[in-house]
Amino acid sequence: MNAEIIAVGSELLTPQRQDTNSLYLTDQLNALGVEVVAKLIVGDDRARLAEAIRAALVRSEILILTGGLGPTEDDVTRDAVAQALGREQVFHQEICDAIEQRFRRRLRGAMPEINRRQAYVLTGAEVLPNPNGTAPGQWIASDGRVVMLLPGPPSEMRPMFHAECLPRLERVLPPQVIRTRFFRIANMPESTVDQLIAPVYTRYTNPVTTILAAAGDIQLHLRARSATAEEAERLLEEVAPQIEAILGERIYSRNGDPLEEVVGQRLRARAETVSVAESCTGGMLGERITSVAGSSDYFRGGFLVYTDRMKTELLGVSEALLREHTAVSEEAAREMARGARERTGSTWALSVTGIAGPGGGTEAAPVGTVIIGIAGPEGVATQRERLPGNRALVRTLATQVALDLLRLRLR
Amino acid sequence: MNAEIIAVGSELLTPQRQDTNSLYLTDQLNALGVEVVAKLIVGDDRARLAEAIRAALVRSEILILTGGLGPTEDDVTRDAVAQALGREQVFHQEICDAIEQRFRRRLRGAMPEINRRQAYVLTGAEVLPNPNGTAPGQWIASDGRVVMLLPGPPSEMRPMFHAECLPRLERVLPPQVIRTRFFRIANMPESTVDQLIAPVYTRYTNPVTTILAAAGDIQLHLRARSATAEEAERLLEEVAPQIEAILGERIYSRNGDPLEEVVGQRLRARAETVSVAESCTGGMLGERITSVAGSSDYFRGGFLVYTDRMKTELLGVSEALLREHTAVSEEAAREMARGARERTGSTWALSVTGIAGPGGGTEAAPVGTVIIGIAGPEGVATQRERLPGNRALVRTLATQVALDLLRLRLR
Repeated sequence: MNAEIIAVGSELLTPQRQDTNSLYLTDQLNALGVEVVAKLIVGDDRARLAEAIRAALVRSEILILTGGLGPTEDDVTRDAVAQALGREQVFHQEICDAIEQRFRRRLRGAMPEINRRQAYVLTGAEVLPNPNGTAPGQWIASDGRVVMLLPGPPSEMRPMFHAECLPRLERVLPPQVIRTRFFRIANMPESTVDQLIAPVYTRYTNPVTTILAAAGDIQLHLRARSATAEEAERLLEEVAPQIEAILGERIYSRNGDPLEEVVGQRLRARAETVSVAESCTGGMLGERITSVAGSSDYFRGGFLVYTDRMKTELLGVSEALLREHTAVSEEAAREMARGARERTGSTWALSVTGIAGPGGGTEAAPVGTVIIGIAGPEGVATQRERLPGNRALVRTLATQVALDLLRLRLR
Repeated sequence: MNAEIIAVGSELLTPQRQDTNSLYLTDQLNALGVEVVAKLIVGDDRARLAEAIRAALVRSEILILTGGLGPTEDDVTRDAVAQALGREQVFHQEICDAIEQRFRRRLRGAMPEINRRQAYVLTGAEVLPNPNGTAPGQWIASDGRVVMLLPGPPSEMRPMFHAECLPRLERVLPPQVIRTRFFRIANMPESTVDQLIAPVYTRYTNPVTTILAAAGDIQLHLRARSATAEEAERLLEEVAPQIEAILGERIYSRNGDPLEEVVGQRLRARAETVSVAESCTGGMLGERITSVAGSSDYFRGGFLVYTDRMKTELLGVSEALLREHTAVSEEAAREMARGARERTGSTWALSVTGIAGPGGGTEAAPVGTVIIGIAGPEGVATQRERLPGNRALVRTLATQVALDLLRLRLR
């Protein structure tokens, strides 16, 4: 079956903004054996959108619209779908009540009058509840075609698609079993990973292997399709172990969990704790560790020591050491980690010091120089890195190196 | 004038790849006063592409196609445009010679036979030379419409657009100047902003006002077009001051700078400093402040106090206070801010304590409850918030509230 995705919103036609919802949706649809054959981005123009909807439904069985479900006049998706399908819209009091309640409870105010527009539903549509926002989604199935109206913010769209659309799609689609394996690898260049595993994966067309690269993070997807789960699993079992053998302990996750989650799971399993001492990352390492729900089980706390004085006063790094070696040195990283571990009483402490740029580089420590310290039951160690990219990337990569260093200690 | 952009290539319909050419092209076109009204991504399907081209030319004067100009059967753009416009394709020996030469010189080999396909040009088209690749572009102007065929790789597309298409477009387009105003507002719901300013902006079609909403952050764009810069400025001056009068000090930026940058600029101008004490945000506030290059001028450091013990040991929050009021209380936020300010010697200190969720909520402090503390030369104050959304959103909004609170003190 074929699908098309239409992202609605004039902001997606500016040079600054990109539609990213369609990447998530494509991934989800592909996993169901559905191919995405076209993606369209249109502005807040009802007539044009209605025309695009009609054209898409001539060609494809599944049409997903994201965005344009807000309360303002600019939010044209409901009207355009109604026009394209020749359906009426009906006001649903219970949706209006839910939106009103949300305003009272979460936003501490009365619902603005314009939000009533969000309570209109096309005749024959199923309402898809939105626990993360005011705009409910809609599911319309007729004549062997399915049209979905989903909100634009990813934080609303994704949970709704997962909870409401996936089960409905599975009922509609022909039975096809897809089984996947998933590996994540930290701090290896995409081309290195590819060179290592290409001799394996290029020999197979089923499963399909895809490589997704983000900052300091590689995701490998192996996806096998078959009529039965057993056969799909068998296909995966032919390829996945070969890739695992090549990458070994560089694989930090086999289920998609991010690095900070894996580190947290290992700490919890060992009933150990961690603290941080951050200079150039300024809180990003703590932020990542505590982005995991329940991280208070193992995160003690940390120190943002952005100046030499703070390194000395808060962590006890000696002034003489900073004078002799500077703050961007193995010696400073070592003392920072040791100081954080002592002051918080944690099992482990990670420290980060470096030059994130764009200014501040020296010949001895050019921009991108970052030193990670790790203090634990068996002493203190450091690792020096020369990280590529701009300030934001250097900082992100630094936290990735630090987390992976800890992960490897927690085997 | 209106433009549409079609990116051709099945690889752009995978979950891994995104069309980015259109962002560059949109920026270039907007600067010429051309609005991009739709963007389409289609696979290597000639019939579908031809249909999309015909549909686009009904609506828009300018159509840019990127990609699909390669030598293989999958490269369907030339054929699809010929089909849609009802034109023949003619073999150009001099293009073939240039490709052959490129193979000999750059790729040190003979030109594969299939590359001859790249030497076909639509009748009436102007050939756009490609110094950075084998596929030449094409420019077709007729009936007041312009169609451009550009290569897909950005390293070939951009130089070609700049050198070949821009000068041609400038000859075709009416002289037009665009001037913009830009406002950012923190911590107001989109619908509230819209209700406040709609009475103003709906009275004008030039400038056009657009509202862009992100987590706790609203961006307003006003864009005026005219034949002269003076007239465009005059049009803006009619509307912008009215919007500024309504939103007043809620506007934190008039040039697009993010909130953490504005706060930093004000601190630097006053030669003041800030520190943080973070519980539920776990470093995110420090991370945002230090994401700004040069923030070491005003950021002293901070404390990630994720446990009660850390709040007591690192910041001196009394155990009795935490027992009586809990860590999520105005009292705790106050002492955290006071402690951070004293221990770092900063002019200001911000504290954040709350329940980011998903667990940990109580009746007195449900998930989303966040208390911000601010300590400064004139004492300590707190602000209690009930923030919507999941863990990530609650944390992001909490930092947004904290930064805006400080901004308002730095007038």
